[in-house]
Amino acid sequence: MNFQSIKKFTTMDKNIDLKDIITFLDNSLIAVYGEPDFVVIKHLRDPENVDEFTLDWINPLKPDKQKIAETSKAKVIIADKEVVFSETLKNQEKVLLIVDNPKLAIAKVGNEFFVERPTPGIHPSAIVHPDAQIGENVFIGANSVIENCIIGDDTIIDTNVHIYSTVIIGKYCSVKSGAVLGGMGFGFEKDENGNLFRFPQIGNLFIGDYVEIGANTCIDRGALSDTVIGDHCKINNLCHIAHNNKIGKNVVITEHVVIAGSNIIEDDVWIAPNASIRGWLTIGKGATVGMGAVVVKDIPAGETWVGNPARKLEK
Amino acid sequence: MNFQSIKKFTTMDKNIDLKDIITFLDNSLIAVYGEPDFVVIKHLRDPENVDEFTLDWINPLKPDKQKIAETSKAKVIIADKEVVFSETLKNQEKVLLIVDNPKLAIAKVGNEFFVERPTPGIHPSAIVHPDAQIGENVFIGANSVIENCIIGDDTIIDTNVHIYSTVIIGKYCSVKSGAVLGGMGFGFEKDENGNLFRFPQIGNLFIGDYVEIGANTCIDRGALSDTVIGDHCKINNLCHIAHNNKIGKNVVITEHVVIAGSNIIEDDVWIAPNASIRGWLTIGKGATVGMGAVVVKDIPAGETWVGNPARKLEK
Amino acid sequence: MNFQSIKKFTTMDKNIDLKDIITFLDNSLIAVYGEPDFVVIKHLRDPENVDEFTLDWINPLKPDKQKIAETSKAKVIIADKEVVFSETLKNQEKVLLIVDNPKLAIAKVGNEFFVERPTPGIHPSAIVHPDAQIGENVFIGANSVIENCIIGDDTIIDTNVHIYSTVIIGKYCSVKSGAVLGGMGFGFEKDENGNLFRFPQIGNLFIGDYVEIGANTCIDRGALSDTVIGDHCKINNLCHIAHNNKIGKNVVITEHVVIAGSNIIEDDVWIAPNASIRGWLTIGKGATVGMGAVVVKDIPAGETWVGNPARKLEK
Repeated sequence: MNFQSIKKFTTMDKNIDLKDIITFLDNSLIAVYGEPDFVVIKHLRDPENVDEFTLDWINPLKPDKQKIAETSKAKVIIADKEVVFSETLKNQEKVLLIVDNPKLAIAKVGNEFFVERPTPGIHPSAIVHPDAQIGENVFIGANSVIENCIIGDDTIIDTNVHIYSTVIIGKYCSVKSGAVLGGMGFGFEKDENGNLFRFPQIGNLFIGDYVEIGANTCIDRGALSDTVIGDHCKINNLCHIAHNNKIGKNVVITEHVVIAGSNIIEDDVWIAPNASIRGWLTIGKGATVGMGAVVVKDIPAGETWVGNPARKLEK
Repeated sequence: MNFQSIKKFTTMDKNIDLKDIITFLDNSLIAVYGEPDFVVIKHLRDPENVDEFTLDWINPLKPDKQKIAETSKAKVIIADKEVVFSETLKNQEKVLLIVDNPKLAIAKVGNEFFVERPTPGIHPSAIVHPDAQIGENVFIGANSVIENCIIGDDTIIDTNVHIYSTVIIGKYCSVKSGAVLGGMGFGFEKDENGNLFRFPQIGNLFIGDYVEIGANTCIDRGALSDTVIGDHCKINNLCHIAHNNKIGKNVVITEHVVIAGSNIIEDDVWIAPNASIRGWLTIGKGATVGMGAVVVKDIPAGETWVGNPARKLEK
Repeated sequence: MNFQSIKKFTTMDKNIDLKDIITFLDNSLIAVYGEPDFVVIKHLRDPENVDEFTLDWINPLKPDKQKIAETSKAKVIIADKEVVFSETLKNQEKVLLIVDNPKLAIAKVGNEFFVERPTPGIHPSAIVHPDAQIGENVFIGANSVIENCIIGDDTIIDTNVHIYSTVIIGKYCSVKSGAVLGGMGFGFEKDENGNLFRFPQIGNLFIGDYVEIGANTCIDRGALSDTVIGDHCKINNLCHIAHNNKIGKNVVITEHVVIAGSNIIEDDVWIAPNASIRGWLTIGKGATVGMGAVVVKDIPAGETWVGNPARKLEK
């Protein structure tokens, strides 16, 4: 397949008046150099594909920022104040927007002008329990099945999601396609014949505000206790979070992470892809769990653990 | 989000007459102390949240069981016979139920009185092949797609499940949301130009009785042989079981386990989260595979293997 | 469950005239011995279950091929030219088909005569954006949700798949059930309060021709750049491929593989189950990544790396 030839059919281009971007950035703008009138921005692009209509930005960590600005093909550049509006830039008729944090600025502009948000509403093919409490401005995508649960305002539920009854989800959350929330946990007892049967899984699942849950991720309800996911947690695709976990705020759980039952994960923990956490452990505030780490012991706050089995990484 | 404030909206509370529980426990009850008449049980809870209306239970392994009973906030407690109906318990007007195995008793009571079973039936949004053989008392959830296969009595198929044709599932099974059963295995040949194409995957997938299959788990059909999952196997979320595996009875496969093709997994094996098994191996009866283990050799019966690559764990 | 007793209900048997198979194999057939007229082939089977109506084949790597042929229960056998049409075979009235590559021949016959292809068309329960560009002979299965994207000719989209807008998929691809293609990548910035919010994920996802994508696998779109999957890549179930990855041709990505963001995976790489690749790395042409490997460095072309962390495997 020749990707280049079909790229033109799939553009996400816009026609945005630069003045609207300047208005949006408002007081995070330190200075505007050049002539911003009648300038149109069509897209954001990675450095290799910048063109005239790109809103370009310069990473403050780069050593040769002035040169990057002066060789950029873009007409408009966001940079920090170490980039000056040189004669070269002036002669190129460029527009230079100065901010403290160019990446933050480009992220905010991108989200405001280029990211399409689904219009709030419930897709006709979604199946929502009549007693479910759905907040304002909620989007529920096609074929999702929402049992008798609570969903906060401004939350987005994508496609083919299943949310079991008595799950509580906060505001401004995003649940991606195929996620399964509030299923019964994997706890079994042996009966008199030695056969396994499920221990009752009748706790709740509480999910805070501003939480993201990745595609095909599964989070189980509590057994007799509850499963809790704190505000601002970001969870990527294909994770499993078992029953009774108590996860703090601002925890980042990347793809394919396994968190077995009844752990305490404190605020600001960062868990790298494909790590496993055994169950009944405490991962202390701000700790980092490395990629593929197999965690079988408590991790003290602030430490980084890696390996199989995971051990403290000495700097 | 303040979880406490909204918890009251999501109660799974019941109003159960203690006499009904006593009748249900029947001859597993060794003794009943106190006055069980007119006592109402509303919920099961973890130890930290026990209240007056909780049916509490005391883990036989705890060293201070008598004290736990005497300080429990619950009116009704299930314990083993080492807990006695002391003057303290009597004065507290508690009811003490004595059984051999308190956890087994609480599990059975929980499943009988607190776990909601879906009413048998096929959700109108499910798509079931007209020739599929669906047993009695089967539940098929919303948006599930059932091709021309056989599903035994009393089996529960949850939401968004896809079962391909010629899959055979036994009785009293549970297939959780998003599971994909009977897909074509990942076997390829190279054609004359060196390009890969799929080797035919035309074997069956047989799943026994009392098998649980987790959410978003994938089990492939056999290639020319069959894939077989024995009775009473419990498989958790997000597992991959490849073509031609022969899995015995009572095998526990926890979350995120990968079982590549053509292995023999004997009865009573226990596989911890995120373990990988290479293919063409035999895991002997009752063996244990550790969390994150990368198994590239046969494991003899009864042994425990851990690590990457997995090696025998010496006690 | 007694699997044998119900197997008869689930046969995928056909009634194929051997002459049709001979015509299909055409000039890859070196010789035909015996009498092929009026011979019926009903199935392909693994060696243990071969019967009279099986089209049997003999692996060229086996040491005792002649004996395997002479003891096979099948009437018709495909073998390489080291197997001769002995007096024994003649007396057994067998038919011997000689080819250079028996496994390739059986694979092609299997795909032609035994694998059921879905009839092209869009299932009435699928939800397809009115502006989506769907090629000829495309199959889109039940409950799949196809946003405004491009799907090439002869591609099969299975059940409960979600494809976001601006995804481009080539010809002769297969996307298995529950896959999620083109979701927003997992990239976050911190706002002024230290809370994470998503960096815009507005790049494309390009998928080449003859690509297979496994069940419940997730491939994210690019952030500002694109995610690219080359022709003839084969990706198994439950994989995560993050934003901005550039994956070459003929790359095999087995089950549960995690590829974090912005890697370059060159042609002909083979990645074993449950391996993780960190992000911003280059995996050189023809390299092999071992099962459960945790890759945190570039891998040179042609090398095999294993372990946690992954290291070069010295032969």
